[in-house]
Amino acid sequence: MTRASAEKDLEIPPGTAPAVILVEPQLAENIGMTARAMANFGLSELRLVNPKNGWPKKGVREAASGATHVLDAAVVFSSVEEALADLHYVLATTARERGQMKRVFSPDDAMAELTSRAGQRCGVMFGRERVGLTNDEVSLADAIVTFPVSPDFPSLNLAQAVLLVGYEWRRSSGRAVLPFTGEMLSPPATREALVALFANLEAALDAAGFYPPEKRGGIVRNMRDRLHRMEMTEQDVRTFQGALRALTRSRKP
Amino acid sequence: MTRASAEKDLEIPPGTAPAVILVEPQLAENIGMTARAMANFGLSELRLVNPKNGWPKKGVREAASGATHVLDAAVVFSSVEEALADLHYVLATTARERGQMKRVFSPDDAMAELTSRAGQRCGVMFGRERVGLTNDEVSLADAIVTFPVSPDFPSLNLAQAVLLVGYEWRRSSGRAVLPFTGEMLSPPATREALVALFANLEAALDAAGFYPPEKRGGIVRNMRDRLHRMEMTEQDVRTFQGALRALTRSRKP
Repeated sequence: MTRASAEKDLEIPPGTAPAVILVEPQLAENIGMTARAMANFGLSELRLVNPKNGWPKKGVREAASGATHVLDAAVVFSSVEEALADLHYVLATTARERGQMKRVFSPDDAMAELTSRAGQRCGVMFGRERVGLTNDEVSLADAIVTFPVSPDFPSLNLAQAVLLVGYEWRRSSGRAVLPFTGEMLSPPATREALVALFANLEAALDAAGFYPPEKRGGIVRNMRDRLHRMEMTEQDVRTFQGALRALTRSRKP
Repeated sequence: MTRASAEKDLEIPPGTAPAVILVEPQLAENIGMTARAMANFGLSELRLVNPKNGWPKKGVREAASGATHVLDAAVVFSSVEEALADLHYVLATTARERGQMKRVFSPDDAMAELTSRAGQRCGVMFGRERVGLTNDEVSLADAIVTFPVSPDFPSLNLAQAVLLVGYEWRRSSGRAVLPFTGEMLSPPATREALVALFANLEAALDAAGFYPPEKRGGIVRNMRDRLHRMEMTEQDVRTFQGALRALTRSRKP
């Protein structure tokens, strides 16, 4: 995974990210959350096949939490065939074996397959909340995507399934950049600065009678090992030196 | 990713999966969906720090869609310190830079780090829906997890963030088994069976006058190439042989 700060999304040329096709989705909340999940990972093309009880749905914009550009651009189709018509490669998501002789992909392998198809319009089909896709609908797809869920609780929410596809698409397409990195604001401490800190600390512990003289060697080495584990920056060393000065001042009133 | 059919979850010894700590979650729906997302990937230990407007919340069980074992076992704490007290390694999720000098992990690297800590109790902390975790809360964690979201629409829903952590934990812990595989029900066709199909098809096309004799060689080779792309099983060959017999019968009444 690349790590770099990014302030604007890496360009996603139109038609390169997969379309998300929801077949007869029922709940406004799931469609809204789907739009939000898509926007989180840079997907923008939502296709709805016969949304139950019509479209647009009440509450869908609230559930999208601001991903209204995805909802506004959503296209409604009256059949799966029409919704897939212009696509070159289609995946069907399903939680159960269909006895259909198709390749079965995990989400990461599925998205690697999609991103390898440069110049092809791809789509991922998701079924109804309760019953998924029919076998006839699955038979319109090139391959199947299924999720590595616990067999004890395999029922994945619709928008959650879309989220995993979006997440893996973003990774496969090389856009999985973290919004910030853990870069240290101060450079690593030099050995000289560390050794000076050790010397002050050990002098203070000597003065405080922290160890019997015959055990000093081992205790000092252990203490240095602990401090090394911190991988201190220059600023860390300055702060510890200051704290040590403050502690030794207060001990000698 | 391992591919094998599994009917019962691979054993997850108690205390090996990370605890999920929600700090002052507000919406019943998000807590329920969090429980569901946890159960999807085999996480079971939910800790709630001061859920807003009390606990249990109305509507939370419905949103959990059956993951009530996670809700029933959830423990409520009155401070983050108490919720983390027994843990050895804690991650804080955050969407923005805090200027805190901590390691920053992507979800996959974060879960690899957790699963490498055998024998340690680990937890992942998630903040309030609108404002996340405070800097003081983040300072109680060992490292940060952040998500590779689009900078154009980075706002990830709470339960969606938990889902990505669960998904990556399951992968890192070697439990990402797909519920079924695309194994062909019939073995691959032998070369003998394919050659017999080619012979029948070419004889039928000869009889139908499909190509001028001088172009036969190239057209036949292209047709064989197309059929090879299907990687036919024995059953595929039998079905195509049957279809060919039916078509040639109907052409000679």
